[in-house]
Parts: sequence; C-alpha cells; structure tokens
Amino acid sequence: MEQTPIDKLINDISKLPGLGRRSAQRIALFLLKNKDKNLMPLIESLNLSFNKIIECRNCGNIDMQDPCNICSNTARDQSTICILEDVSDLWTFEKIGFYRGLYHVLGGSLSAIQGIGTNELKVQNLINRIEQNNIKEIILALSTTMEGQTTSFVIADKLEKFKELTVTRLAQGIPIGGELHYLDENTLNTAFQSRKKFT
Amino acid sequence: MEQTPIDKLINDISKLPGLGRRSAQRIALFLLKNKDKNLMPLIESLNLSFNKIIECRNCGNIDMQDPCNICSNTARDQSTICILEDVSDLWTFEKIGFYRGLYHVLGGSLSAIQGIGTNELKVQNLINRIEQNNIKEIILALSTTMEGQTTSFVIADKLEKFKELTVTRLAQGIPIGGELHYLDENTLNTAFQSRKKFT
Repeated sequence: MEQTPIDKLINDISKLPGLGRRSAQRIALFLLKNKDKNLMPLIESLNLSFNKIIECRNCGNIDMQDPCNICSNTARDQSTICILEDVSDLWTFEKIGFYRGLYHVLGGSLSAIQGIGTNELKVQNLINRIEQNNIKEIILALSTTMEGQTTSFVIADKLEKFKELTVTRLAQGIPIGGELHYLDENTLNTAFQSRKKFT
Repeated sequence: MEQTPIDKLINDISKLPGLGRRSAQRIALFLLKNKDKNLMPLIESLNLSFNKIIECRNCGNIDMQDPCNICSNTARDQSTICILEDVSDLWTFEKIGFYRGLYHVLGGSLSAIQGIGTNELKVQNLINRIEQNNIKEIILALSTTMEGQTTSFVIADKLEKFKELTVTRLAQGIPIGGELHYLDENTLNTAFQSRKKFT
C-alpha cells in the first residue's frame, strides 16, 4: 500500500536522531496545523542550508566557505591542530573560546560494528596536513569512551613517524564541580594515578 | 549581528515542539553531514506535505482531500460525531478501529491563559453541523484534565438546545491493567462513585 504524504512526513521526521514515532507525529501536526507560519519557514531554512552550507575539505568543519573561516583565519595559531570527533565539539570549543589553533573534525570514532575505519575518519587527510604545513602540536580531544580511546591510540600510532611533532591529549580526572562519591571507579582510579603535587 | 544559515537552521529546528537547543543542534548536524541523503529527502517530504495536505473544513481532520476521507465515507455512521482535542487523538481512534462514526477535531481545549476560546475551537462549526445534518449522538472524548473537562462542560452547555440529541462522554475509572495502589485519589474516588453491578 502506498503511504500518504502524512505518513511519509511522519516517517521522515522519525528518522532524525533522537526522535521516535510519537515525537515525529507531534512535530508533523505542529507543522501541518499552520503551514504558512510553521512549515514554510522551516522549508526555506532547510533549502538555504542545502544551498549555502558546505564541508571544509581541509578540517571537516561546516561553514559557508571552503576552506572554512577557521582554517582561513591567519590570526589563529597555524601550527596546532586539535582533533575532535564531531562538529558539535568544535562549536563547544569555539563557544568557550580558549583555543586559538586549528581543528580536524573526524566525524566520528573508529567502530568495527558501524564499519567506521581510518578511511572514513579522514586520517590520511590529517597526515597530509601535517606533512604540508608546519604543524608542531596535535591535541587529541576525543571522548574517553572505549571507541574514542581506541581512535586516539590508532591516530597517535600513525603520527609516530613525525619525530618533531608533539602529540597531546586532554587531561583525565575529576570533573570540576564533581563530587567524589558520585564518580565511577575508572575516573577515580585515573584521577588517583595521575595525582599532581599540590601547590 | 546577522545569523548564519547554520544558526538559523538550529534556531528554526529548536522551535519544533519537544526539541531543545541541543537536540536541534544534533538534528542540524545530522542533516548537514549528508545533505543529499538526509537533508534533501526531508525538504522534498515537507514540500509535498505543504502542497498536498489540507485541513477538512468540516471536521478539522487533515487529509489530502476536503471534505476528508472520513467525512466523505458514506459507509460510516453519519449520525454520530465524536469530539476530540487533536488530530493525533483521531489517529489513535482510527488505529484501534472500534469507532465508525464521524469526528469533530477542536484543535485544543479552552484556555484563558493561551487565549483559546470557543471561537478558536470552532464550536459554532459543530453547531452548524448538528443543525444541518441528522446527528443523533455527540461523544465528548476530551482529556480528563481541568481544561478538557471545562471544554466538555462548555460544549455540552451549548448543545442543550438540541432536545433530540444525546450527549455522552467516555467512562472514567480505573485504566485497564492499572494497579490500585498506583492510582491517584481523584481516579479512585471517581471509579468508586461510578461503581457498577458486578455480573
């Protein structure tokens, strides 16, 4: 049986991350209840995004220009690349604003189950960037999940041939504002083993 | 400062019901990561909906035709109208399939705070339907919230002048599969007062 446009709409909305069938239904009804005020502006916004937003071939960021405004900003430190899993991590970094170097967005982490290998993560692209530019430090800022850690190790391994390059990772320990008795064993153990001199 | 298409997209998505800024960001990234596979089909589906889906001027249902396929289905009982708050309630009724009469979708319930009065709920439209057709029963199937109950009372009051008309409401009591000690006082009290002979 052919599905109606309503069914199709609900189906397509429910494919978006984090949405189930009930929330998709709710959103579809919201859009259809007032098509001119709710649906049309969304269509226009999606169309604009489709036409204007592109991925930076250099770092994987998304922007209206390629290279993106971060890669082409000469005021930023061109010798440091921070490796992130996702564009949303980049947004978080930029929002806080403490980092002034470049980025490399992997677009995920290694996952045998999801079939994500080093090719999908554009690791060769990263190696090319290091070879072609005067990169001094690579900061691995991936998740501290199993997948993120594995990805960090694999990338660090591939970067070993660059003898002049410093490869760092974010410190692991107790989150600021974290209460000790809520922490999991792993974090506590890591924080204990990596304890520093109190000054 | 003018917002970028990315900001605009996230903003517009976060206006959808049930979505906050973080989920909007996640959805935007999902769409932008693979524009041809994720974004374009959604735009097409929304466009199709915008062009094809209309509200039934008779009952408030949404469909590809006006009057909708329920109103124009002569196999259904044309003398009974079930009053619902929302199209999603109509979908629930149709999914279960026990009801074979017509509907009247109010599109909400009376709310002084939200400025929803009897005009917004198309109550006059309902009265016209009763006057112009041979309607024998009106079933009030609204929520048992304060707003839903008030709406039921107001509508029942307006229908009092139709002396031949039967106005009913759904039974209130213990939900099937409900455990007594989880029930709130109101439900238990209602169920107790409306107890029936055990046969």
